[in-house]
Amino acid sequence: MAKGAVKLADVAKAAGVSQGTASNAFSRPEVVRDEVRERVLATAKELGYTGPDPKGRLLRAGKVNAIGVATAEPLSYFFEDPFARVVMEGITELCDAHGAGISLVSAANDEKLAWNIQSALVDGFILFCVEGGPRLVELTRERQLPFVALELGINDPSISAIGVDNLEGARQAARHLADLGHRRYGVLAMPFFDDRSGPVPFAEVPTAIYSDSRSRVAGYFEVLKERGIDTDSVPIYETKGEERTAREAVDYLLSLPEPPTAILSMSDRLALAAIERLQERGLRVPQDVSVIGFDGIPEAAFCDPALTTMAQPIAEIGRQAVKAILEDDGQVHRVTLPVELVVRASTAPPRE
Amino acid sequence: MAKGAVKLADVAKAAGVSQGTASNAFSRPEVVRDEVRERVLATAKELGYTGPDPKGRLLRAGKVNAIGVATAEPLSYFFEDPFARVVMEGITELCDAHGAGISLVSAANDEKLAWNIQSALVDGFILFCVEGGPRLVELTRERQLPFVALELGINDPSISAIGVDNLEGARQAARHLADLGHRRYGVLAMPFFDDRSGPVPFAEVPTAIYSDSRSRVAGYFEVLKERGIDTDSVPIYETKGEERTAREAVDYLLSLPEPPTAILSMSDRLALAAIERLQERGLRVPQDVSVIGFDGIPEAAFCDPALTTMAQPIAEIGRQAVKAILEDDGQVHRVTLPVELVVRASTAPPRE
Repeated sequence: MAKGAVKLADVAKAAGVSQGTASNAFSRPEVVRDEVRERVLATAKELGYTGPDPKGRLLRAGKVNAIGVATAEPLSYFFEDPFARVVMEGITELCDAHGAGISLVSAANDEKLAWNIQSALVDGFILFCVEGGPRLVELTRERQLPFVALELGINDPSISAIGVDNLEGARQAARHLADLGHRRYGVLAMPFFDDRSGPVPFAEVPTAIYSDSRSRVAGYFEVLKERGIDTDSVPIYETKGEERTAREAVDYLLSLPEPPTAILSMSDRLALAAIERLQERGLRVPQDVSVIGFDGIPEAAFCDPALTTMAQPIAEIGRQAVKAILEDDGQVHRVTLPVELVVRASTAPPRE
Repeated sequence: MAKGAVKLADVAKAAGVSQGTASNAFSRPEVVRDEVRERVLATAKELGYTGPDPKGRLLRAGKVNAIGVATAEPLSYFFEDPFARVVMEGITELCDAHGAGISLVSAANDEKLAWNIQSALVDGFILFCVEGGPRLVELTRERQLPFVALELGINDPSISAIGVDNLEGARQAARHLADLGHRRYGVLAMPFFDDRSGPVPFAEVPTAIYSDSRSRVAGYFEVLKERGIDTDSVPIYETKGEERTAREAVDYLLSLPEPPTAILSMSDRLALAAIERLQERGLRVPQDVSVIGFDGIPEAAFCDPALTTMAQPIAEIGRQAVKAILEDDGQVHRVTLPVELVVRASTAPPRE
């Protein structure tokens, strides 16, 4: 990058300091006395020197003061998905406090996108593992940089991960509906595997690659069994985590001989899509069907009816992830945060 | 970065290709025949070579396949500000289509943050110039990379900028309220200068550094004058573009001897905060006070009452900005997009 003829050496000479001191005035200001630093910067300005070349600095320091935030989804995911957005608020809050930048990286199985992980200039990665999680972890491992996984649910104790207590959260969700008197349930599931959706026999659930989804089914069914429900007959519909398959799930549940009066949804986004579909089909929520979500995204409070949900400390997940990268000490950081039942208007006793 | 002992030369030798071809198989796959590229990648995998070091690639190619998106606000702005978020949806949509990454950069007047602009490893910048715009432009110019300014409103024809027709949008907003019969107006203004807020005499407006804000006042007042309103007596309150000063603006307007029956707000975010404050003060919108916004953020459709506003093609602004960077041809790109009146429930005829 052309910077004109003025070099750092010229600035150092004119300011009457060593070249090392002049360099530090730019790249490590904290090690230079204020008075000296100000003289160097003033001299640089006078001579028209605009600072060291970033690529040079990169090679010297090996640090880029940036965190990579990666997903197997397109980059638009970070701005369109409400959960991701609130996690990003937590991530940016802490990056702002540290003056660090953020590189957003999209990396799917596609080779070109994989290259984005391989080439991102960052000091470490935070991985949003929804679908494509295992491949994302594999690609990131190859970079040999610190990384931490979110919502991963891949039960690999060698990976740093920030998550919530899915089992206990699911138990509380099922307990809430059971306490209201419901006997007929349906489960609207986040992905168990990649690239599929549809009804899933319970026998397949323990083989799921996403342990978050496994744990939530386990929590739901543990409580339903305690309440005397035949869980073998509780339908589970695996979605792709987005609206279209959530709507298909509702159509499937309503096609059953005994449709559920209560839907256990593994995410708020799925729950909101399900409510919309139920209403389109002429059913009232919660009078005809109760729906409970999981996440606590801001939209859950503003929809009609407002959504009863298991609230995660979403922004805190982002903050913890940044901490795990910035305070990387070679240790595996595994953090499990609590969830909280928030009762709103989408759940009520069954009609009969 | 330790990559083990395997070097690109080893891969080239084992795959029976030149080192240049092996390198291209990784960094410029489009210039290598599929068959050769696959052989190189398979050999690399076999030998445990995980690709060229990104820093090395950077020095060779000079391109990083990433766009810098910068603001003088904290990074959290990109996820918390509704307008910024929708612009980012447009930016990510086109970056996804090009397989490019995004570096989010925060740079205020503070020296440490300025350093983020100076050191960001990107091929060009998109600047969100709300407050701190001029300084942001100055810092970015020094990088000698392509850049484009959004919402800039700094009237510098040498800078590429994507914006909307502020003058015509403001005219339409004022015309809508005047057609409803309003005679007493107040203007809720986006910043004219940095780091201040409060009532502004009209005489100061033409000296504002932000021409967006200048143009909107000009559009409002042009129409109000045509309708026989004494614009000298129309109060203008300069906010900092966020909720707190918008609420202060409402308190100020309500303290006047003849409070307005119609508020012309230069942004939806300001308008929503103003409506909240009006309602807290016991006034009904639109029965007691009409409020029109400017932007067309998604929230404007869902609030109560739904907001009448001048809708910008927000995502398109983001897409146009990415185009200006990716198709950089050394030309200055200045794009002005149209705005559209969207009538909802926050405006009505005055009570009397």
